[in-house]
Formats: sequence, structure tokens, C-alpha cells
Amino acid sequence: MAKQERMRADVSRLSLRISMSFDGYTSGPHQSLEAPLGVGAEKLHEWVFAVRAWRSRHGMAGGEDNESSAVVDAEMANIGATIMGRNMFGGHPGAWNDREPWRGWWGKNPPFHHPVFVLTHHERAPLRTEGDTTFTFVTTGIESALEQARRAAAGKDIALAGGATICRQYLAAGLVDEMFIHQVPILLGGGERLFEGVDDLHGLELVETIAAPNVTHFKFLKR
Amino acid sequence: MAKQERMRADVSRLSLRISMSFDGYTSGPHQSLEAPLGVGAEKLHEWVFAVRAWRSRHGMAGGEDNESSAVVDAEMANIGATIMGRNMFGGHPGAWNDREPWRGWWGKNPPFHHPVFVLTHHERAPLRTEGDTTFTFVTTGIESALEQARRAAAGKDIALAGGATICRQYLAAGLVDEMFIHQVPILLGGGERLFEGVDDLHGLELVETIAAPNVTHFKFLKR
Repeated sequence: MAKQERMRADVSRLSLRISMSFDGYTSGPHQSLEAPLGVGAEKLHEWVFAVRAWRSRHGMAGGEDNESSAVVDAEMANIGATIMGRNMFGGHPGAWNDREPWRGWWGKNPPFHHPVFVLTHHERAPLRTEGDTTFTFVTTGIESALEQARRAAAGKDIALAGGATICRQYLAAGLVDEMFIHQVPILLGGGERLFEGVDDLHGLELVETIAAPNVTHFKFLKR
Repeated sequence: MAKQERMRADVSRLSLRISMSFDGYTSGPHQSLEAPLGVGAEKLHEWVFAVRAWRSRHGMAGGEDNESSAVVDAEMANIGATIMGRNMFGGHPGAWNDREPWRGWWGKNPPFHHPVFVLTHHERAPLRTEGDTTFTFVTTGIESALEQARRAAAGKDIALAGGATICRQYLAAGLVDEMFIHQVPILLGGGERLFEGVDDLHGLELVETIAAPNVTHFKFLKR
């Protein structure tokens, strides 16, 4: 057992974490520049905006210490790199605007504080920010992004932050080692479903369920 | 408050209870006479087959007393009638076979022990069983079935037992007063989704979450 744990600690894990509605959506219907998450989907994230651990990381005062706080702390600990999809990085579809390229939703000092790898079909030079977050744009697919993230994470874990499209790709390829699903008891009725077309968890098993009033946290681990 | 509770007690509630996969399905893909729940969907019900309260009601010995037992007890208490869809009653699509009509999955003494109303497009005379369960076939729609069930329940609650199609109809009409969702941490990848096309819970709010190792029980109540 000790040996197994040591071996695990040697390899950085790919850890999916995402908020999902009770009907399985991670974004709402009618996504647009004005409603980047889709209509109604901001409700998926209200639970995390209220948590002190998350607020303090994002430079905001106050917040609650509740059942969800420990979950947020556990998620944030030991992350050395993040992978996200182009839509989560944000902006617009298609090629990047060379003159004034979109810099993401996160302002001058994004809250990641580690290398972020953005999966896109359109090449773009890396984006350095005033803080210690860098964005690297990967056009060579999910395995290449994972390899680059693993090198950058230097033994720490890698957060797979969304959206649904790249989560599905990593899930279908069996590359996800850990999965935190934050299920919010609302219906969105449309948008992108996390598990659309995915019918195999590739050995991910539910190991912990934490029920908070407005969200249920499910932790899956690869056996 | 006392008055409000008294008023509530006067009216029998329509209580939906159903097992659902982590990707939102209440039946699996490729439903057939051989696989009436669809492929893989028997896994949605393993948790209840293991519970002593359920086994004893179905004439089986043994079983576990676990976190799910109290949930099953609460579900079974105070039910005076059940509504179900044609597919859950089972058998075959289309008109009933007059000579040898399908009698359901439940043997000579079905475990309901109260009036059951089966929504169908095809008329059929009521079916009396050797026990105290009767099946009445309703071709006049969900509101008519609810009205008949309410009369039969005589003040007790009405179980809405599935499948997904009639649950969706009652949900969309805002007629569900209580909802128990038993969510099982598996993916089915196909079949019938409980909330397909339903984007409004009509005031049903999550009031309790009970996490068992192999199933999470969500209780919603109309506010």
C-alpha cells in the first residue's frame, strides 16, 4: 500500500472539476459573448462564488466557511497546471485577432498562478500576464496538451477545468484520473451536457459524496 | 404553520420516485422484451434490491439495513395509489392482446397492494389480481389518471413510479408535489432521460440529500 501511494505521488494526476446541473448540463442554452456560459448557467457557480477559499484566491473579501469550503481547498491544493478549452478561455470562435487578441476573462492577473494550456484549432503565441499565469495555446490535440501540462506541473496535479467538449474528449480517452462533479439542483433544459456520448468512466469510481444545501460534491477516483 | 400543515395533510400528494444514472437516464439503450429496462439499466436498481425494507415487501428474506433503508421506508409509507406508464407495466407496444393480455411483471400477487393506474393509448378492462392490487388502464390522459388515483388513494399519497415519459409529462404540467431521485454513479450512455425537454421544476426544491455508498438520494418538495 505504501509503495502504491508512493508510485501514485510520483505521477501528476489529471483532475477534472466542473459544475453540472441536475439535468447534466455544464453550460446553458444560447451561449453568446453576452452570455458566455449560456442562459441561466451562472446559477451553476453561485455555490463557489460564496465560498471564502475561492473568494480569497480571486482577491475578494468575505465568503462562507461551509461544507463546500473543504472541497474547494482540496481542489486547489497541489495543482501545477491547468488545461481548458478555447471556449472557456473565451472570446470568440475562429482564428485569433492578431491585432488585439482576446486575453481571457480573468483580467491582468488571472487567478491560476501556474501554466495554463488552452486547446484550440488556431495557432497563437503564448500569452504572458502580469502575474505568474501563462497561457500556452495547443493545436496538437488533447494528448499533446496533457504531456505539456505534465511537464509544466513538475509532479503536481493538472486541473481539467472545462468546458464540456474537452472534458468529454479526455473522459472518452480514459485519461482522467480524478473527477470532482459539483451538481447543482436546478434544470437548465439545454446547453452542453458533460457526458453526451460518453458511456464509460474508464475505472473512475465514486469515493466520496458531500451534500451541501445548494450543491452536492461527488469525488471519483480511478481505481 | 399548524394550519398550513393541516391543509397539506388533507390533500394527497403526487410523489415521483425514480432511479437515475449519473448521466440522467432512467432506462438504458436498446429496450426490448428481453431487456425491458434497456441494456445496463438493471444497475440502477441494485441499491434497492439490497435493502431489507424493499425485499420484505417483495416477499424476499434478508437484505441490508443501511442509509437507503429509511429512504425506502419513507417512500413506501402512506401511499394509497400508484400511477405508471404503459412501458413500466410492461409487455409490448400497441393494442393489448385480447386473448392472453399481458399481466405485468409482478406475478400473481403484485407488490403494490393498492390501486394502480396505467397510462396507455389502448383501452383495456381493469385487471384484478389474487392479492389486493388492481390495475386500471387510463386512456384519457395524465390529469384524468391523477384524478382517479386521488379518489382511490382516499387522502393518502400517490406514487408516480415511471417511466421517464409519464414522469416528464407530470413534471412539465407542474403536477408533481414531491420527488425522490435516486442517483446511481454509473453512466448508461443512452436510453430515456428523465428531464429531456423539461426545463422547469415548477417550484420543486431540494430539501434533503442522503449519500449512500452506491446511490445518492435527493428529496425535492414543492414550496
